[in-house]
Amino acid sequence: MANRIALLLLFAGTAFARPKHPTLLLKPADIQVVKEAMGKYPLLDRSYKAVQKTADDAMARPIEVPIPKDLAGGYSHEQHKQNYTAMQAAGQCFTISQDLKYARFVRDMLLQYSTLIPTLKNHPKSRGASPGRLFHQALNDCNWLVYTTQAYDAVYETLTPTERATIETGVFRPLCQFLTVDLKPWFNLRHNHGLWAVTAVGLCGYVLNDRELVQQALLGTEKDGNGGYLAQLKALFSPDGYYVEGPYYARYATLPLFLFAQAIENNQPEQRIYQYGSQLLKKVLYTTLQQTDASGRFYPFNDALKEKDWTSSELVTALSFTFGQYGPDPSLVSVAKEQGRVLLNRGGVQVAQLAAMYAGKEPPFERKSLVLTDGPEGKSGGLTLLRGGPEKEQTSVVFKYTSHGMSHGHFDKLNLMLYTAEREILTDYGAVRFLNVPPKDGGRYLPENDSFGIQTIAHNTVVIDQQSHFGGSEKVAEQNPGEAYFSDLTNPAIQIVSAKSKTAYPGVTLHRTLAMIPDGNRANPLVFDVFRVVSDSLHQVDLPFYYAGQLMSTSFKYEPALTSRVPLGRQHGYQHIWTEARASPAAGTATFTWLNTNRFYSVSTATDANTTILLTRVGANDPNFNLRPETAMILRQNWRTGVFASVIETHGQYDARAETTSGAESQVKQITVLANTPEATVVSIELRNKTRYRLAIANADSQPNQPHQLTVNGQLIQWQGYYQLVSQ
Amino acid sequence: MANRIALLLLFAGTAFARPKHPTLLLKPADIQVVKEAMGKYPLLDRSYKAVQKTADDAMARPIEVPIPKDLAGGYSHEQHKQNYTAMQAAGQCFTISQDLKYARFVRDMLLQYSTLIPTLKNHPKSRGASPGRLFHQALNDCNWLVYTTQAYDAVYETLTPTERATIETGVFRPLCQFLTVDLKPWFNLRHNHGLWAVTAVGLCGYVLNDRELVQQALLGTEKDGNGGYLAQLKALFSPDGYYVEGPYYARYATLPLFLFAQAIENNQPEQRIYQYGSQLLKKVLYTTLQQTDASGRFYPFNDALKEKDWTSSELVTALSFTFGQYGPDPSLVSVAKEQGRVLLNRGGVQVAQLAAMYAGKEPPFERKSLVLTDGPEGKSGGLTLLRGGPEKEQTSVVFKYTSHGMSHGHFDKLNLMLYTAEREILTDYGAVRFLNVPPKDGGRYLPENDSFGIQTIAHNTVVIDQQSHFGGSEKVAEQNPGEAYFSDLTNPAIQIVSAKSKTAYPGVTLHRTLAMIPDGNRANPLVFDVFRVVSDSLHQVDLPFYYAGQLMSTSFKYEPALTSRVPLGRQHGYQHIWTEARASPAAGTATFTWLNTNRFYSVSTATDANTTILLTRVGANDPNFNLRPETAMILRQNWRTGVFASVIETHGQYDARAETTSGAESQVKQITVLANTPEATVVSIELRNKTRYRLAIANADSQPNQPHQLTVNGQLIQWQGYYQLVSQ
Repeated sequence: MANRIALLLLFAGTAFARPKHPTLLLKPADIQVVKEAMGKYPLLDRSYKAVQKTADDAMARPIEVPIPKDLAGGYSHEQHKQNYTAMQAAGQCFTISQDLKYARFVRDMLLQYSTLIPTLKNHPKSRGASPGRLFHQALNDCNWLVYTTQAYDAVYETLTPTERATIETGVFRPLCQFLTVDLKPWFNLRHNHGLWAVTAVGLCGYVLNDRELVQQALLGTEKDGNGGYLAQLKALFSPDGYYVEGPYYARYATLPLFLFAQAIENNQPEQRIYQYGSQLLKKVLYTTLQQTDASGRFYPFNDALKEKDWTSSELVTALSFTFGQYGPDPSLVSVAKEQGRVLLNRGGVQVAQLAAMYAGKEPPFERKSLVLTDGPEGKSGGLTLLRGGPEKEQTSVVFKYTSHGMSHGHFDKLNLMLYTAEREILTDYGAVRFLNVPPKDGGRYLPENDSFGIQTIAHNTVVIDQQSHFGGSEKVAEQNPGEAYFSDLTNPAIQIVSAKSKTAYPGVTLHRTLAMIPDGNRANPLVFDVFRVVSDSLHQVDLPFYYAGQLMSTSFKYEPALTSRVPLGRQHGYQHIWTEARASPAAGTATFTWLNTNRFYSVSTATDANTTILLTRVGANDPNFNLRPETAMILRQNWRTGVFASVIETHGQYDARAETTSGAESQVKQITVLANTPEATVVSIELRNKTRYRLAIANADSQPNQPHQLTVNGQLIQWQGYYQLVSQ
Repeated sequence: MANRIALLLLFAGTAFARPKHPTLLLKPADIQVVKEAMGKYPLLDRSYKAVQKTADDAMARPIEVPIPKDLAGGYSHEQHKQNYTAMQAAGQCFTISQDLKYARFVRDMLLQYSTLIPTLKNHPKSRGASPGRLFHQALNDCNWLVYTTQAYDAVYETLTPTERATIETGVFRPLCQFLTVDLKPWFNLRHNHGLWAVTAVGLCGYVLNDRELVQQALLGTEKDGNGGYLAQLKALFSPDGYYVEGPYYARYATLPLFLFAQAIENNQPEQRIYQYGSQLLKKVLYTTLQQTDASGRFYPFNDALKEKDWTSSELVTALSFTFGQYGPDPSLVSVAKEQGRVLLNRGGVQVAQLAAMYAGKEPPFERKSLVLTDGPEGKSGGLTLLRGGPEKEQTSVVFKYTSHGMSHGHFDKLNLMLYTAEREILTDYGAVRFLNVPPKDGGRYLPENDSFGIQTIAHNTVVIDQQSHFGGSEKVAEQNPGEAYFSDLTNPAIQIVSAKSKTAYPGVTLHRTLAMIPDGNRANPLVFDVFRVVSDSLHQVDLPFYYAGQLMSTSFKYEPALTSRVPLGRQHGYQHIWTEARASPAAGTATFTWLNTNRFYSVSTATDANTTILLTRVGANDPNFNLRPETAMILRQNWRTGVFASVIETHGQYDARAETTSGAESQVKQITVLANTPEATVVSIELRNKTRYRLAIANADSQPNQPHQLTVNGQLIQWQGYYQLVSQ
């Protein structure tokens, strides 16, 4: 609250003089920098050529401004999208070349829009609370504005006062009115949609020099700081720069985030927006880049499509602005090189310059172990990334105990993903959607996204009684983030993180600890996974491990479903899973080994007389073949309280070309749960080479360095703090 | 027969003087060429370094010559394999560097073998008719000899007469005796094993200067030409250089093929072995390289692992020898570059030199349309490759109507595969095997290879009454190759090939015609598929299309198997297939569309009131999870006589990063079978853009240019020859 008032004060008194255009994203000095750099740096030249091609191609065709009619993928939708891209490109070309043909193109198209827009009611295909005018949803209208304000800004000085008046009255004012008045509640919503909305209106405000619009965009329609850009910034990004919906949508949010910031910087530099939150915007970019696999694809948790990577235009934009504002960073040159383009601004020039300097010898982007908090105050759980192993074959563990993540969140508290370099090993399904593919329901989220994708059983975390976390209620989930418990990334012998959810199920505590431990005999680290479940009453407890690859061997016998298959359950996603085999392993240690590309992987887990193991495949109750046939091993117990103690190994090599195989067998000999009390859980792991590890985890410490002692098998063990690893 | 006598005469009179060593693969002049080229060409230097590293690494460890005990993947097996690789490498290093340490290593190791080998009986783990001594199968003993003869040859001149005598008596003579006497029938067998056996003995013969051994290796143990290298050459390769088992094993056979040829060339150059069969060896290499997808992986028909590609060492060897003997060819430089190494011989130098000259600007390897005959006389059917479309996204159709292909053949007469560049679109399962992966039955062919992989229903060709071709009898299949009917690759409007099998089922003729037709509106050609089935009695007729990718849409309704799945049948592979959906489309045209990577694909087919369509997935009755879950659309009819008339389209673009989709819909409006008589089949195809094609295929012409006339829908159509395409 204090914070909000500070923001109000910060902006309330600001006044700004009538600017010369362009004023939004580039200042005259920036333009000079770009012009002088042209012809010097291949990345910059290539980028300009691409923009020019977009503009020239569009200008070679007659202008078409159709009456809005179609959904995404349809003609009117795609044409309006093409139009805004073309106008933005033409604006940029004019700025650099001063060739008036580009300015005229923007003018002519905007004049056509100025006769269309005032006639529009809500789009005929719109659904829900945020209909659009040019598009079926207001979000796309905001996209349109964010691009066209840039184009208008670029050509502003070439227009007559009458032309300006026509365009402002016919295009920008009605759309701003629509967003801030007709859609007021939506405009003030803290959400990626809201971020786009305030950016659209904010850019209009600056380009029209309308102080009122800018204030509404910055502080919400009531100018009280309950809505607007600053509230969005605060609500959607944690102090570490983690975006509440996860990296897939973080990508999408970075575009308005940076564009509006740059417009503020150019028009109200005294606000020092880039310094806000200890350089929050910089952190957003770095944090988002860290949440990628080795090929730059965003980790696909929550609603996410797996193809999206850091070469997307939003990240190109963020990178150029970040260089421009925070200075060049050699560690990002490899990212820029993969992106293959830069913005035509000061930062873009710096990126291109540095890329030219490194000439292909740039250092690789380094993925580090990181604890990222979630929530405005960093108190709504978080995401931890553990990294280890050789640079080219890095093991990454992604541990998710964030807040729910708004409407695109999944019910996946304490979810685990595991990667080798860019290869998914323990997987998250992501979204059930074929984005913009017309035959798949116009590219929308498919019904199986709700019935499977978001459900807990689609994730590598515990499901109680075949019900999703929070009963599958988004509203309840939103109020109950995961809880960070402890982490230690500085110990050379172990990287460890522990988190809990006490609210996913009434009367049940879920507590998972993940640790990465260098394995002296092998390049890739071992991953320990200790998942404790505590309750007063008996529950069925399922823990899936979705694995990518081909099953190689199991240490246990199973009954395969050879000639008929049935679904695993009836609801909460279980109805989409075929049971392929069922095992009741003996008490001891069960190992499951699979092959992915050129490496073997094993999950070994401590079993008792009541353990059931299910081998499953996704695909039941899928009438339109929308699902991929992903496979899982599911551990099942009936417990009041218990612990799944597992080790995940990366082992061996399979070289199909040379026809050689090594290390196809797991090296885990035995995993034993030595103790599992309210005070602590102690697990011992013995490898075949006689190495033994004993990991003790304090279960309920309220502060660091608490002393513990426990008698295990008649032996007294003692330690101080959240955990102790003993190896011999 | 005349041919065989000519060969006998050719070789019978040949005598050769005691050579100075090395004599097998390199002559002194060659060595000089290599030495002079060192330091000049990166590819050569890199290759030498790699060989040196192999030798040095091995020499840094104590020599181990264990008593044979283990299967592939086990210690003794892998050690003996390492030993022959190390000795060969050390031999090469000595030849180039004259550093005696390499010669001593070879000597010391061979001396150890000379005490081991005379003590050996058959390997304890050997099975079947061709047990080995050092390894579980004689084939591996032959591999061992092929490598170690090279090593012995290289260091021969550094050895004392006593050392030579010890090694020859203890190593080479007993193994040759074993192969030519104990395993005489196997040695004379025409098979890739036989080719390795004769090469092993032939190289021994030359290096020991033993005329008798050489003669046996060239002409068989009886020296009558019924066995031996020349009989192998004749039996296994067609006049076009097609290898009877297909490209996966062609790769394996090329190694002994070229090594023995070079030894003959060096020791009996008057035989002009490289000119044999109009330069057959050269044709073998080029033909094998053509049978690859755009990433160089061999087409995986018959028993084949999909990972194998032209970078394998066998193809490196073949390429270097081919350059050395037939001269440099710029069209192969890109292949060499991908291989990343060359042999240390005259040809290898030429490859490295040309690669350095092109310095990364070498032309891409060009995949062409080709008709390849199979069989010693080119009369046992064949394989046709149709290529079309843009260079980077080339469409390749692989049409297989070869002979059975010996023990690794599949029952897949008239099988079809389709690729876009390196991406499998209509797929062949290949072998059910995880080569050299110990947990998968020691890397052997798995039981599902027999029960599914080789069966007809695992392939994109017709199955009658749920029985495999030839009742699944390899013996019967071997006697009944496919029949080439006609082909025309020279018509710019159409590439067309037609083949038959009259023997796969008693009383049934299978006749498939495939055509590639440029599509004016799209980059990739249309593929027409006309599969005619003729019989006197009623049969169930299934035609699967195994597709890689995700189902997008169907033009027909189907009943999905939502909550239970059962296998499609009981035997001949059907027991491994789950039925996922079943459709009875209306008479007309049924279209099935899927997405693979960034393109859409459709199979459209003419249907009648009795057509059934099944959507299936592999995986039933697979207790050890050995199978991949491949998907198919299966057309089913009950016919005496009928024709499946289908069109396969490549269409549209899906760009997941840019979130754009185009052309997701099939453009085929209607396919109609206008006529299907003993004389001809006529099919009409209408696209949505009004383009119409009419393809007439003469069904039983015995010679080209026969005149045809037919009344179709009251219209008289006339043409001359095997086919007519009319488009409007």
